[in-house]
Amino acid sequence: MPYFDAASAAPLHPVAHQALLASLDEGWADPARLYREGRRARLLLDAAREAAAEAVGCRADELVFTPSGTHAVHTAIAGVLAARRRVGRRLVRSAVEHSSVLHSADAHVAGGGSAQEVPVSSYGAVDVADFVRAVETEGTALACLQSANHEVGTLQPVEEVAHACREAGVPLLVDAAQSLGWGEVRGPWSVLTASAHKWGGPAGVGLLAVRKGVRFAAPGAADEREAGRSPGFVNLPAVVAAAASLRAVRAEADAEAARLRALVERIRAGVREGVPDVEVVGDPVRRLPHVVTFSCLYVDGESLLHALDAEGFSVSSGSSCTSSTLTPSHVLRAMGVLSEGNVRVSLPRGAAEEDVERFLRVLPEAVAGVRGALGAPGEASGGGAAGPGSLVVDALGRRCPIPVIELAKVIGDVPVGGTVTVLADDAAARLDIPAWCGMRGQEYVGETARGRYVVRRTQ
Amino acid sequence: MPYFDAASAAPLHPVAHQALLASLDEGWADPARLYREGRRARLLLDAAREAAAEAVGCRADELVFTPSGTHAVHTAIAGVLAARRRVGRRLVRSAVEHSSVLHSADAHVAGGGSAQEVPVSSYGAVDVADFVRAVETEGTALACLQSANHEVGTLQPVEEVAHACREAGVPLLVDAAQSLGWGEVRGPWSVLTASAHKWGGPAGVGLLAVRKGVRFAAPGAADEREAGRSPGFVNLPAVVAAAASLRAVRAEADAEAARLRALVERIRAGVREGVPDVEVVGDPVRRLPHVVTFSCLYVDGESLLHALDAEGFSVSSGSSCTSSTLTPSHVLRAMGVLSEGNVRVSLPRGAAEEDVERFLRVLPEAVAGVRGALGAPGEASGGGAAGPGSLVVDALGRRCPIPVIELAKVIGDVPVGGTVTVLADDAAARLDIPAWCGMRGQEYVGETARGRYVVRRTQ
Repeated sequence: MPYFDAASAAPLHPVAHQALLASLDEGWADPARLYREGRRARLLLDAAREAAAEAVGCRADELVFTPSGTHAVHTAIAGVLAARRRVGRRLVRSAVEHSSVLHSADAHVAGGGSAQEVPVSSYGAVDVADFVRAVETEGTALACLQSANHEVGTLQPVEEVAHACREAGVPLLVDAAQSLGWGEVRGPWSVLTASAHKWGGPAGVGLLAVRKGVRFAAPGAADEREAGRSPGFVNLPAVVAAAASLRAVRAEADAEAARLRALVERIRAGVREGVPDVEVVGDPVRRLPHVVTFSCLYVDGESLLHALDAEGFSVSSGSSCTSSTLTPSHVLRAMGVLSEGNVRVSLPRGAAEEDVERFLRVLPEAVAGVRGALGAPGEASGGGAAGPGSLVVDALGRRCPIPVIELAKVIGDVPVGGTVTVLADDAAARLDIPAWCGMRGQEYVGETARGRYVVRRTQ
Repeated sequence: MPYFDAASAAPLHPVAHQALLASLDEGWADPARLYREGRRARLLLDAAREAAAEAVGCRADELVFTPSGTHAVHTAIAGVLAARRRVGRRLVRSAVEHSSVLHSADAHVAGGGSAQEVPVSSYGAVDVADFVRAVETEGTALACLQSANHEVGTLQPVEEVAHACREAGVPLLVDAAQSLGWGEVRGPWSVLTASAHKWGGPAGVGLLAVRKGVRFAAPGAADEREAGRSPGFVNLPAVVAAAASLRAVRAEADAEAARLRALVERIRAGVREGVPDVEVVGDPVRRLPHVVTFSCLYVDGESLLHALDAEGFSVSSGSSCTSSTLTPSHVLRAMGVLSEGNVRVSLPRGAAEEDVERFLRVLPEAVAGVRGALGAPGEASGGGAAGPGSLVVDALGRRCPIPVIELAKVIGDVPVGGTVTVLADDAAARLDIPAWCGMRGQEYVGETARGRYVVRRTQ
């Protein structure tokens, strides 16, 4: 049963499994104790820290283990902001950071700080000049830029940004959760975070590296463990397994990246060939080797996920109907791309070519099935002019992708030059109606009042 | 090789081991996902929560999993204090709470709040009336009382205090880290915390139960997991193992408690028989079944730990020389008992009687060896009157137990009614000189200036 959601969590790497089992027996004691079980635990902890630091590219005394990547990010952001409070209270971040960065920024703003969001291109990358301009603004205490985007796989220009941040004297936090298993983050970053269960390590382990010289004040209640930066009893068996598996996946990384990159190319091409009205999103070149994301017009993401699950494929989605908040993912919104029928395929290490081929065989029918059930119009929806010069479609209370489907159904009923006004309160419409216009070559006039979208027929 | 430090960490219970292995394969996916691996993970998480909540004695929707007992305590205290800020900013705690409570209280005070410490008896228990009086003081937002002390095993009057707190309308947090494996905490507590690796579960899991109706605002950056109270990817295999082992240790608890209680009785008696000048501390009756603590006059705790380690016994100590801060444990200080040569024995489940007997055979020689190396005086140090009416002992810069040893060596040199003044800058002297006077029947006059201790010979 092919699992294609490695960017959420990966099954345990065999090396992690083995290391975890061994250290359940050897590493359960408190490494702060003086007796032999404690000394043994201390040796394991020190060795794990050395190994992880080498993979990160920092000194062992710059790296601490946290209970998760999320904890690493929360601590990193709060820790730098608290220590640099006198410099200023501005945080700069890209629009497509992981939710843990967004939540930290929200907490900072709630506490009286400010946060500037730097927009991204339709590929999902920040522009270096834009980012640096934001960083150079007076009072910036911290800049946050992920190494690679978790939803669309686009790599960020982290190395150039890191150099510019150093010039500007502003520390840069790099969230390397998606990329660390594939290689070191280059450039003079100040703080780096990562999460072991993304590279095949166990849950329960994050990494937080803070370069010497970066001011840092751990937030909240602290204790003496992990340099005062990560309180609580260290989860040593998991830490040992995390470090061992990081070293193992790194040893295989180049070969496996090349292999997965070819499979992702195959998916990018195969999806376009097999599915009409599909938008493959993310940078086609500067991207992670294992992630590919696409959105299907007139498709409800949740139904598509269920259809693929029934065929044995586990994938995720940034569509609004698959989120608890009923809004499309902030990444797709920031990129301004179609959000309906969104699918992220993230291949685990060892993903089989035949599973990818079967996915490409199954997908078109799954999409067609969802479209059929929703009564989606065919590809060619234009046609002779006809009725009145303007029409109003009332899609209030209807969920994505219905507002777009209703729009598509009637666009042929107004003459070229005429308009269709769609009333919709589903947040996805704000993204998907303009995206539909782009795909169909119609003119998006704008949202003339909240939830009132006007489209002009141009062909 | 007998490990007698179960109150720090226990080796994994066989049920935990088995559950952990099984859920490494079954529970690695994100329980928030819709596909089958995610649904399976969700089922495991829900079942673990049900089981843990039943053992705690709360509803499943009142309980969340945290990355450690420390995280549970930090979140609990910050969460209640933030939500009750309008009521007041006073925190009340016993003097012998776990360091995680102390650190949280420190952070609260650093943020402008206040904290009142309620003293304990020489057995280490709070007086109910004292505690309730502190709780009833205007502006009290939260009271914290452990179920049982982690260093000396004394049980606290939690049930009576919980009823009084409910009367007073002040939420009570019970840190149940040491006792939850032995049984439910009785009484109408508001918030409860615990730590799985104390009962034979894996590291990486704490419990945080917040009763319905208790105002709570999770501190710092949050996410949607665990009811918004514990951010980060849930460490599901560990959570499953924690819940399974809690159920398993509870099933064995009564029988094992009776067995360990008898072994602890044997240690309490055997230590007194075998070791001269020893003080067994903690409540002899109202106590945990597996913890016993004693302090040995004229003994340096670190040397004793090493001597016992060389004989194969792993125990811990609250002596100053075994702590990174070079101060005796705050628990021993609050109890006002001897801190030098302190040993905590905490028996793991299944501890063997023959190991306990061997410990009692080995201990007297280990203590005698340390005393000999330090040149400690014999038991009868009195003697004929002699020299001047007062003497000064300069023990500045000398570590515990040297100041007390020097005092003991010269007390016979002054006549009855004469005084010995000890100059000492080791923090342990503040505890150990009065304790020595109590054990020797001499009069402790007081600390007449910082680090200047006066003792009057009375016999």
